[in-house]
Amino acid sequence: MKVGLLTGGGDCPGLNAVIRSVVRRIANAGGECVGVLEGWRGLVRGNTRPLSVAETDALIGLGGTILGSSRTNPYKNPETDVPLLRRHFAALELDALVVIGGDDTLGVAVRLINDFELPIVGIPKTIDNDLKLVDFSFGFDTAVNVVVESVERLRTTAESHRRVIVVETMGRSTGWIACFAGMAVGADYILVPEVPIDVPHLLGVLKYHRTPFKNHAIVMVAEGARYTDPELLALEPRPFSHPRLGGIGASIAEIIERQTRIETRTVVLGHLQRGGAPTAHDRILATRFGLAAGELVLQRRFGTVVTLKDARISETSLNTTALANCPLDLGFYQDAATFFYEPYEPKTKE
Amino acid sequence: MKVGLLTGGGDCPGLNAVIRSVVRRIANAGGECVGVLEGWRGLVRGNTRPLSVAETDALIGLGGTILGSSRTNPYKNPETDVPLLRRHFAALELDALVVIGGDDTLGVAVRLINDFELPIVGIPKTIDNDLKLVDFSFGFDTAVNVVVESVERLRTTAESHRRVIVVETMGRSTGWIACFAGMAVGADYILVPEVPIDVPHLLGVLKYHRTPFKNHAIVMVAEGARYTDPELLALEPRPFSHPRLGGIGASIAEIIERQTRIETRTVVLGHLQRGGAPTAHDRILATRFGLAAGELVLQRRFGTVVTLKDARISETSLNTTALANCPLDLGFYQDAATFFYEPYEPKTKE
Amino acid sequence: MKVGLLTGGGDCPGLNAVIRSVVRRIANAGGECVGVLEGWRGLVRGNTRPLSVAETDALIGLGGTILGSSRTNPYKNPETDVPLLRRHFAALELDALVVIGGDDTLGVAVRLINDFELPIVGIPKTIDNDLKLVDFSFGFDTAVNVVVESVERLRTTAESHRRVIVVETMGRSTGWIACFAGMAVGADYILVPEVPIDVPHLLGVLKYHRTPFKNHAIVMVAEGARYTDPELLALEPRPFSHPRLGGIGASIAEIIERQTRIETRTVVLGHLQRGGAPTAHDRILATRFGLAAGELVLQRRFGTVVTLKDARISETSLNTTALANCPLDLGFYQDAATFFYEPYEPKTKE
Amino acid sequence: MKVGLLTGGGDCPGLNAVIRSVVRRIANAGGECVGVLEGWRGLVRGNTRPLSVAETDALIGLGGTILGSSRTNPYKNPETDVPLLRRHFAALELDALVVIGGDDTLGVAVRLINDFELPIVGIPKTIDNDLKLVDFSFGFDTAVNVVVESVERLRTTAESHRRVIVVETMGRSTGWIACFAGMAVGADYILVPEVPIDVPHLLGVLKYHRTPFKNHAIVMVAEGARYTDPELLALEPRPFSHPRLGGIGASIAEIIERQTRIETRTVVLGHLQRGGAPTAHDRILATRFGLAAGELVLQRRFGTVVTLKDARISETSLNTTALANCPLDLGFYQDAATFFYEPYEPKTKE
Repeated sequence: MKVGLLTGGGDCPGLNAVIRSVVRRIANAGGECVGVLEGWRGLVRGNTRPLSVAETDALIGLGGTILGSSRTNPYKNPETDVPLLRRHFAALELDALVVIGGDDTLGVAVRLINDFELPIVGIPKTIDNDLKLVDFSFGFDTAVNVVVESVERLRTTAESHRRVIVVETMGRSTGWIACFAGMAVGADYILVPEVPIDVPHLLGVLKYHRTPFKNHAIVMVAEGARYTDPELLALEPRPFSHPRLGGIGASIAEIIERQTRIETRTVVLGHLQRGGAPTAHDRILATRFGLAAGELVLQRRFGTVVTLKDARISETSLNTTALANCPLDLGFYQDAATFFYEPYEPKTKE
Repeated sequence: MKVGLLTGGGDCPGLNAVIRSVVRRIANAGGECVGVLEGWRGLVRGNTRPLSVAETDALIGLGGTILGSSRTNPYKNPETDVPLLRRHFAALELDALVVIGGDDTLGVAVRLINDFELPIVGIPKTIDNDLKLVDFSFGFDTAVNVVVESVERLRTTAESHRRVIVVETMGRSTGWIACFAGMAVGADYILVPEVPIDVPHLLGVLKYHRTPFKNHAIVMVAEGARYTDPELLALEPRPFSHPRLGGIGASIAEIIERQTRIETRTVVLGHLQRGGAPTAHDRILATRFGLAAGELVLQRRFGTVVTLKDARISETSLNTTALANCPLDLGFYQDAATFFYEPYEPKTKE
Repeated sequence: MKVGLLTGGGDCPGLNAVIRSVVRRIANAGGECVGVLEGWRGLVRGNTRPLSVAETDALIGLGGTILGSSRTNPYKNPETDVPLLRRHFAALELDALVVIGGDDTLGVAVRLINDFELPIVGIPKTIDNDLKLVDFSFGFDTAVNVVVESVERLRTTAESHRRVIVVETMGRSTGWIACFAGMAVGADYILVPEVPIDVPHLLGVLKYHRTPFKNHAIVMVAEGARYTDPELLALEPRPFSHPRLGGIGASIAEIIERQTRIETRTVVLGHLQRGGAPTAHDRILATRFGLAAGELVLQRRFGTVVTLKDARISETSLNTTALANCPLDLGFYQDAATFFYEPYEPKTKE
Repeated sequence: MKVGLLTGGGDCPGLNAVIRSVVRRIANAGGECVGVLEGWRGLVRGNTRPLSVAETDALIGLGGTILGSSRTNPYKNPETDVPLLRRHFAALELDALVVIGGDDTLGVAVRLINDFELPIVGIPKTIDNDLKLVDFSFGFDTAVNVVVESVERLRTTAESHRRVIVVETMGRSTGWIACFAGMAVGADYILVPEVPIDVPHLLGVLKYHRTPFKNHAIVMVAEGARYTDPELLALEPRPFSHPRLGGIGASIAEIIERQTRIETRTVVLGHLQRGGAPTAHDRILATRFGLAAGELVLQRRFGTVVTLKDARISETSLNTTALANCPLDLGFYQDAATFFYEPYEPKTKE
């Protein structure tokens, strides 16, 4: 049995652990694996590398993906790229393809299954933890821990200068990272896309915090958090014209400093949250996902994707419905908001 | 409402996060908390300290317990200590007592509930993760990560000297830590109390590992792993007469070195696994346990204990049955054993 | 003997270790200490706190400064603030004042010594390591290690996506942090204020690096690095109008991506580099600086400042000459440049 | 030019950084390198591997040595091993050999230089920091930081249980690691081989420490610290018969617990101190040592060894005198002892 593996989309800690795990499961059953390079691009171009147990055995703690990744979507040029992809798939004589990726990468898999019945097994990957397929995705725990370690560093400098520090985390459409990291550091406020920004409440909480027992504050904000107040909406884009740099964190910091007169600083954690060695939790989850996918391949249960629901690993059909996004569970946000100076009941978006 | 808190048994990362969380939940509802010092001993002796939001707000990342801990059991001297405990409980005018501890500490709570209907809410604590009440306990994730970081250090020295390193972890009666950390580092072999030690198989796997792609090996062993072979049982205690020092790790290392002629070293991680800042996972779990216990107190649902089943926090009656121990789920062991050179099907104890 | 302590300017890891050390040395000799809050502002306003051995003993590993800090300079309002400062100094009945700060904070001390013979002992503090007084300053080693750990995380994501990552470090006028961290991570290029940016050479080196054995690159840039080419000078400020956000890192990244067509990302480490627990090196250096300053106080050798030259701690007169800045030793840069693909002989600024 | 490299003796963080650095310096000058495997054993047996820039470029952060190491001394079998070593040296057509090792490994180099004028350049390596050749050796800073991080973990558990924890560090003949780590964690007592153990003083200091502001204690002890009191000398070996396990740490802990009735625990850090990624300091020092050795090779200045004195890298003749050991500078010990509850003036051994 010959099994291809590919990793697509943004990298995340645990991808190499998944690769190692699939390779071992297949090898133990007498099969062999081949790595497709840089996501779907590798199948379009026919770029591969061998993947033996010897080459992958030591990878469990290595961040990123040795296969490389890309956001190439063969359906963007369906007339040239899809036939190329099929030709290379055939030439490689693959019995199965394990696709590790988020909704974009797995969305291509769905089309290839529907259009050509390619023998695919999917493994969900999302550092933002925003796929319905999984309670928790590998990489997420690592990202949250990186944010926590960073905030611990920032806190001592915030204390020394009696500052507010606004920490902008990943999370374009969901606040999982901001909320979990915020809860874990005891953030004084947390802003997430799922809850409209309530500036007066934020400022109120921060003023309360300048009380005897606390002389600084940490505000966590997911990069996708947004104002709803039309005045602020008008304000937001003005001072920050360069899309890569001026984010919601800088905007919030400016508002806080202007309104409270407390010195405020912003830190954008950016790519730090994606990289480095995975935590034990993510190594184990990635390893178990790899074993589950290997098992599905060996049982020839194609067109499936691995899931994690209620702490149990299982699988479901790989189709568009399965790839639905999953916003932050507001129960977690309410738990975290218990520790804002005044407990806060979030209003959901209407 | 006046709520007492006590922490008993061995310390573990996350205890302070629980304390902070209960204090905040009660304070938000208008109540106040008081800390009982050094477990049940504090109630027997009447030693307490105030616990305000201001004093506990910054504790989420601090290891150990600011309340101190002990293994004092008032039922060892029931005629003197239990009346003293009741007298101090009454004098403190407590409306409720939140008890954070393992089977011993919570076992005392069960008797106090049964004998005197003390208004108690329990929170399970076990760094070994061996209570049926919880899928995962706070502190366990931290312990596993400490083992993983330690093994990463040991691996480079094992490689340089082409050695086997035997790493002895906590786990007197269960192999959760050894198995999870072993899976996360890609250990070459894992020995746990739940699976009888099969020396020939261990030696066989290690010989295979001295192959071109690997020049060293990591063997994880829980301190409670035991031989079943009568000859080895006879051998085991001989060279290691001092109970605090000579453990199963040293014994296994000696057997490996003698039989394979590969240089072998032992490292006993010991108390390193209990201390230090909790991981994000454990901070969040501990915080949520504290909120859940605070809620139970506010609803006067006494005689209950917080649980975590299928990734959901709930509660159950606090009684002897609830405190049952929980061995390592062998499914995890089989997953980890996939990566031994020859996959291994564990035989359970008969 | 009653000794005041104050910390001024930007915070840095090791300040609390210095405070603890001075307090202990003075206490061992029978004296007592008092903390002046938030730098010179505390003396102007008369804000202080007690500093006993009990309160400071556990501080060696805590980042920042429990005394708070500010950039207040009483000589900005010499007619009001300087008399206030002298009045509070007299009211506190201080026999000596230990001032921990950089050239600004110590510059005020020089004027107070010259104008009023205040009994001051200085301790140099500069996270940028740019004071002639010291070969290495406490906090610098911690900052370099933070950069190294961050780059290790960024490297795995750079590898997975075959990117160039530009890491902007602290260093407005000197390249110590960028150069040392760059050497420690094996950076592919390092840009520092002491060496004019040579864009063609940088681009040349990066192109060489896209060779079989390496698919990514790390470029370190101190925030104060500058172009000299008039065309680029004209270009630089254009796309980055907001002073807090658009720095030299983003500018360099844009040039690299435009010219080489390699995907390039920027990370600005910012305040992360200032905070958190000091390394062992910085704890020890800070402790020894504190002991040396305490000794000078006890010997009533006022008007002095602690120094570190050729690995030895000593002291010198605290005057304007002593506070001279110290650029990066270009020998270190040449060592680091050995590892650029083509070894590079830096041209110094004329 | 063809240059051999070998690493001998115990591994230590920074060896791979040295290898990478020599390889790069030689390659930049047009030469090539070859790695001799497992110390002198590799030359006796003729085991080597190629060492290109491509293969070594990414090694700066990797602990241990990719060349492997051993304690093989060809002069133990001078009639067979020395001729074999010379034959392989000739067959490899080496123009020079860079030897990275401690007094044993470099002692062999001295004899080979004296007996056969082999073209050798030495680089001193000692994790214990006990060679006169260097103020500080690479690997030492890493070891000290590992001890510090470990003690930070142990401290929270010591606090929770109001315990004394005795931490046994490396240091068979010198106390550099114990003293530096002890100073960096604010140890309550430090025991080193250079200062005879004064049990009554130790016990006195620990009793003082059970005062209101501190409820626990950390005692650092180098594995080579020894009693001088004849009674204790008689006592010491009794309960700890197995040389690998029962060390001075366990012995001290037993005495403390017996005499003070304070619960006391021992942790032996062991091989943890040798492994893992080097700190920034050690990466830079190792890199600069490698560049200096490469330079000496290129200038054909054989029979030399790299040195670090007064913060400057230089070289000296490689002979027996140069390899002298260097005990802990007692000035550092006195600085650390300032923080014992009663400051302590150490008596040096007579």
